[in-house]
Amino acid sequence: MTSEKSLKEPEVNPSHPSTPRASHPVTMREVAEGAGVSVATVSLVINNKKDARIGAATRKRVLDTIRELGYRPNALAKNLVSGSSRFIGLVADAIATTPFAGQIIHGAQDEAWKHGFVLLVANTEGDEPVEKDAISMMLEHKVRGILYSTWFHRPTKIPAALQETDFVLVNCFSPDSDALAVVPDEVHGGREATEILVRKGHRRIAFINATIPAPAKDGRLQGYREALESAGIAFDPHLVFDAYPDQEGGYGAVEELLKRDVTAVFCYNDRMAMGLYDGLKQRGLSIPEDMAVVGFDNQEVIAAHMRPPLSTVALPHYELGAAGVRLLLGVDEPAGSPVVKLECPPVERDSVGPNTLTAPRLP
Amino acid sequence: MTSEKSLKEPEVNPSHPSTPRASHPVTMREVAEGAGVSVATVSLVINNKKDARIGAATRKRVLDTIRELGYRPNALAKNLVSGSSRFIGLVADAIATTPFAGQIIHGAQDEAWKHGFVLLVANTEGDEPVEKDAISMMLEHKVRGILYSTWFHRPTKIPAALQETDFVLVNCFSPDSDALAVVPDEVHGGREATEILVRKGHRRIAFINATIPAPAKDGRLQGYREALESAGIAFDPHLVFDAYPDQEGGYGAVEELLKRDVTAVFCYNDRMAMGLYDGLKQRGLSIPEDMAVVGFDNQEVIAAHMRPPLSTVALPHYELGAAGVRLLLGVDEPAGSPVVKLECPPVERDSVGPNTLTAPRLP
Repeated sequence: MTSEKSLKEPEVNPSHPSTPRASHPVTMREVAEGAGVSVATVSLVINNKKDARIGAATRKRVLDTIRELGYRPNALAKNLVSGSSRFIGLVADAIATTPFAGQIIHGAQDEAWKHGFVLLVANTEGDEPVEKDAISMMLEHKVRGILYSTWFHRPTKIPAALQETDFVLVNCFSPDSDALAVVPDEVHGGREATEILVRKGHRRIAFINATIPAPAKDGRLQGYREALESAGIAFDPHLVFDAYPDQEGGYGAVEELLKRDVTAVFCYNDRMAMGLYDGLKQRGLSIPEDMAVVGFDNQEVIAAHMRPPLSTVALPHYELGAAGVRLLLGVDEPAGSPVVKLECPPVERDSVGPNTLTAPRLP
Repeated sequence: MTSEKSLKEPEVNPSHPSTPRASHPVTMREVAEGAGVSVATVSLVINNKKDARIGAATRKRVLDTIRELGYRPNALAKNLVSGSSRFIGLVADAIATTPFAGQIIHGAQDEAWKHGFVLLVANTEGDEPVEKDAISMMLEHKVRGILYSTWFHRPTKIPAALQETDFVLVNCFSPDSDALAVVPDEVHGGREATEILVRKGHRRIAFINATIPAPAKDGRLQGYREALESAGIAFDPHLVFDAYPDQEGGYGAVEELLKRDVTAVFCYNDRMAMGLYDGLKQRGLSIPEDMAVVGFDNQEVIAAHMRPPLSTVALPHYELGAAGVRLLLGVDEPAGSPVVKLECPPVERDSVGPNTLTAPRLP
């Protein structure tokens, strides 16, 4: 809520000459009259024809008049002349239902603007006809290309219409094609999450994985195993089990968890950790003293505000959007594989304490 | 997460004739050749010139060819001819930091599409220069109008550039102008939240309001007072106090709350209720048996997944976006005041039980 206090409010100044009423936008003719030149001359200056024989003084007078009157060149006309627009399309399947899509949009827009592009956003809620319409709309507006994004990391088929333009898959990938894609490095994330616990001396670490098949399920498990291995801890399959990846799933997993003799647990996501907290506290157990807990996602509004604040790993949604734009525009080139993987950085808070039983003596 | 399983994946079919490679979009000339007519004829058919003398058979042949080849008319050209585009701009100050903006976008897009408009979304994070750029970009693309939205309900100044086109304020309003605006009815919401408790027989009801001045702070308090009044319960100022509107604020308010002799509490928002839950449980109190709790916002990912699931009141973000578009396009007319207020519907879950002390006998 801190942003609530820091929001700036732009000044309004209706008397300012650059704000004519909607009823009457400034025309090129008015600029010509104001500057005492022909409409053709104004047009040449606007379209920045360097070769056109226009004196510096005239050019300046035209530009000054444009500023004074608040004339706005017609981007549609410019785009038509150039044959393509300054649009990049972004198709998202769930703007409304998770904060994740918002971060992808934010990152994509910031990067697009750096390169003089504007984002056309379409929210499909995963509905196929809506998706077809969205892509058609973008193609008809001659977008430079399209980012096709999903709110959770998954394999996807490529909509046929998408292949009529350049596109990059964001937070998803196509197993049966060499389509450019940018996704989170789930293995790296699983390793980072587990290492938060290992660093505090935990050796008996449970992993509650998701019941739903997904790249995250396999990748995070592999990362967990790699972290244990490099810490010289033997992998014990008995310490890994599944739960539905939400609060109810985490709450329901507590009983199973307590049957394992562990001092720490890595939860598939933050929502699961939130439910797990409730179940542990209900049994009079405290976090991190009785159980160290790590989540995954660094979910908005939740992770930082649980009691205690949750140590977790961040999904790089903002970076996914930004990297998608850079790949689309050719600013970045994929190194080798067409599927670019981004790191999931650890976010350490207070849900992990030292393993009081076996904490190693630090030098 | 259920949507995770229900997401459809569009079929890809690269061999389909309507999917040429990005390297070669279909041209109007190819359509003309395919249909065995002149380019001029194709153009007349596309622009649907009824008066043009074109036989039904020819027209059909052209349209069939367009479908076969997957030719896409140039929306930029159409827009240029018509002088305005089919764009509606939406300026949002916080797509990335709350799920609220996502719902406004979702509602605005659905409504815009119904009327054949496309949404141009710009995310400003409340940054004034970015906002200026965003509005300029929209004006240069000749948008039909602009929705100017904020993620929390507040008064706002009107950016000067906004006045160059039609606009509607969404989730905000301008106290010093008659600008069209659509906002949540905070008074109605406060009344609904309080009545959830009153209906269960609670008489001693605390209200933990926000420390931050906002229309929500005043409106929800008034709604609370109106609900008590119509239930014949005297307003007791001692039962109303402030806390910071997040989890930490709610947790910190528990001690103050327990000094009041109440059976129920209405929290300014769901995040506050989430922290309050932690504080109550930590003291061995259970919800709703020892304390009935109602929140506000019906916040994604939180309200439905607390233990017990939280009874609350929904902010009509989706409806705000949709109503904004209807006002902009003149589909809806404001009745009287230029500021349209939308109801905040109650969402009853399990955090409110009957007041075991004074529950009325139901017939």
